[in-house]
Amino acid sequence: MKSEDKKPYLTTKNLTPENQESPIHFLNKWKTPVKYFYRRNHFPYPLFSPHHFWLQITGHVSQPRFFHFYELLSMPTKSLIVPLECSGNKRAHFIPKVYGEQWEEGALSQGKWTGVPLKALLKYVGLTNDAQEVVFQGADFGNRTDVEEKVSFERSLPLEKALHPDTMIAFQYNDKPLTFKHGYPFRLIVPNWYAMASVKWLRKITVINHSFKGPFQTNDYMYYPYKNSDKDSFPVTIMNVNSLIQQPLNLSILDTGAHQVKGIAWSGQGIITEVQLSFDKGETWLQTTVNQLPNQPYSWSSWFFDWKVDKKGEYMIYVRAKDSSGNIQPLTPFWNRKGYGYNAVSKIAVKVE
Amino acid sequence: MKSEDKKPYLTTKNLTPENQESPIHFLNKWKTPVKYFYRRNHFPYPLFSPHHFWLQITGHVSQPRFFHFYELLSMPTKSLIVPLECSGNKRAHFIPKVYGEQWEEGALSQGKWTGVPLKALLKYVGLTNDAQEVVFQGADFGNRTDVEEKVSFERSLPLEKALHPDTMIAFQYNDKPLTFKHGYPFRLIVPNWYAMASVKWLRKITVINHSFKGPFQTNDYMYYPYKNSDKDSFPVTIMNVNSLIQQPLNLSILDTGAHQVKGIAWSGQGIITEVQLSFDKGETWLQTTVNQLPNQPYSWSSWFFDWKVDKKGEYMIYVRAKDSSGNIQPLTPFWNRKGYGYNAVSKIAVKVE
Repeated sequence: MKSEDKKPYLTTKNLTPENQESPIHFLNKWKTPVKYFYRRNHFPYPLFSPHHFWLQITGHVSQPRFFHFYELLSMPTKSLIVPLECSGNKRAHFIPKVYGEQWEEGALSQGKWTGVPLKALLKYVGLTNDAQEVVFQGADFGNRTDVEEKVSFERSLPLEKALHPDTMIAFQYNDKPLTFKHGYPFRLIVPNWYAMASVKWLRKITVINHSFKGPFQTNDYMYYPYKNSDKDSFPVTIMNVNSLIQQPLNLSILDTGAHQVKGIAWSGQGIITEVQLSFDKGETWLQTTVNQLPNQPYSWSSWFFDWKVDKKGEYMIYVRAKDSSGNIQPLTPFWNRKGYGYNAVSKIAVKVE
Repeated sequence: MKSEDKKPYLTTKNLTPENQESPIHFLNKWKTPVKYFYRRNHFPYPLFSPHHFWLQITGHVSQPRFFHFYELLSMPTKSLIVPLECSGNKRAHFIPKVYGEQWEEGALSQGKWTGVPLKALLKYVGLTNDAQEVVFQGADFGNRTDVEEKVSFERSLPLEKALHPDTMIAFQYNDKPLTFKHGYPFRLIVPNWYAMASVKWLRKITVINHSFKGPFQTNDYMYYPYKNSDKDSFPVTIMNVNSLIQQPLNLSILDTGAHQVKGIAWSGQGIITEVQLSFDKGETWLQTTVNQLPNQPYSWSSWFFDWKVDKKGEYMIYVRAKDSSGNIQPLTPFWNRKGYGYNAVSKIAVKVE
């Protein structure tokens, strides 16, 4: 009898639609196994159809056409370790509380994505001169509280990001075909952006000559700084510099002696250059040891700090990351009505006894 | 391809030792399936040994002896639906925060337990006249921050509770043998008490003629009303009257129209007589419909309220249960340093748009 067969599980936030967090505090891998990859859905899962094997590219292009799954498989591919983070990750930490899925820290996972650069497909069909944005439609659709008819999940990218050589149509995750829950057969992968941009069950790509307006583009996934006004709102795009403390766990009780404080850090605006830790609520900061995956500029970094504690008592530990663009996690979060982009300094309290 | 295969998971709080919550908001059953039964451990899982099939009864008894598993199987049994609730359930709700496993609402599960009344075994061995308490030792052991040597998990019951006809040595859960993680081969089941009393991997029962002092009896599982003093402490025993709201989820966004507010309620001090709901922060209360399992006095009750909401806006919903002993959930919790017995009124906020 295997008495020590202990494993973590996804944390269920909702089942209608299915939203489950990665058990990120209990994973210690560069590539999240697919069963521990967080699940975030806006709608019920689409019914699989053989039509999903055909990816349509249309709109302001010279030669609109459909690409078949097998056609993409035969094209030159690239592989990248890319983290995906829901822009609502850490929403539960906002004070005052905001409505919406109460994600803790696990709406974040990463792994190896393999696919065809979108640029290659767009080159194939040829953009017209007035092309401005590219709209991506998933096969998932359903009801929203603010729209009468059913809507598809649709998001756009500016041309520059759509043509970035690392923006890809992925069909493999960790060297296996995408699983259905993560977008099989095709998922757009947009490195550095929050994950709403990485459209699952990608069916249709439309090049347009204007700014896309859809409920997931101009209503959701906008930062609204005020509770009762839409003033000064702006779109959610690139991931903020961020970090999390995997161990010790918040509000845990430790023995005196040696402990490793460890976690991960990431940013959509460059690589992580420093992760610092404070025991005095941010007055002074100590450097942690940061490890990076070679040749994977999008990957999160891991960090650790060997802490020897002899004095019993209560400790607060703050952690902040800094990226190569000079961004650093702030002490207080940028509160916004829909609760996106939380990236304040990570904090835990522990008791040593 | 089964695209809608959605299921909840246990929520991982810790793996050293394994502590995982039941996904109680997503279950709608009187008998929690064993895979969704919460797991709470003080120590690593014990290594299984054939010795575990022998249950020792010793101490202040006329005829100390060992009972074999098969011997218990051949004795008259009883079955009861009994909920088990960790006394730290809802600890995460205390303000100020308290240290320890941050249980939300799912350190609670119930099902059908089958076993032999402890009373029958104690009658068999014969209590001596000075018998006062009965000590139960599990096969699990390990380190504590406050004790130098390794300790076993041990708890005692007063004689009266030990001799209650429903206190049993269980060997089946939901008509199947106990699983190892839940105490195979034997688990003590103590209806109405918080679950630390229901000792898993039960190996040894010792009748004593004094008050038992062990770290899980007189240090942990005590209510300490003050942060910096042990004054006025008293033991954790019977479950407080309590309830939880399963649906809607806290901080969720709903459409206008009809919604069912529903959940469960339970008490260690009687059956649930009323569950009430308030939309005005406790000023006025409305009755919900309460359902009980017939002939199962320990089972939790389920309750629901059909809510029709036409006006958009933010709503707070409070819920409180009342039991047949007249206990009612208070508006504010009884804060205690180790965070036991939280049973304040259940509250959620929802936004209707």
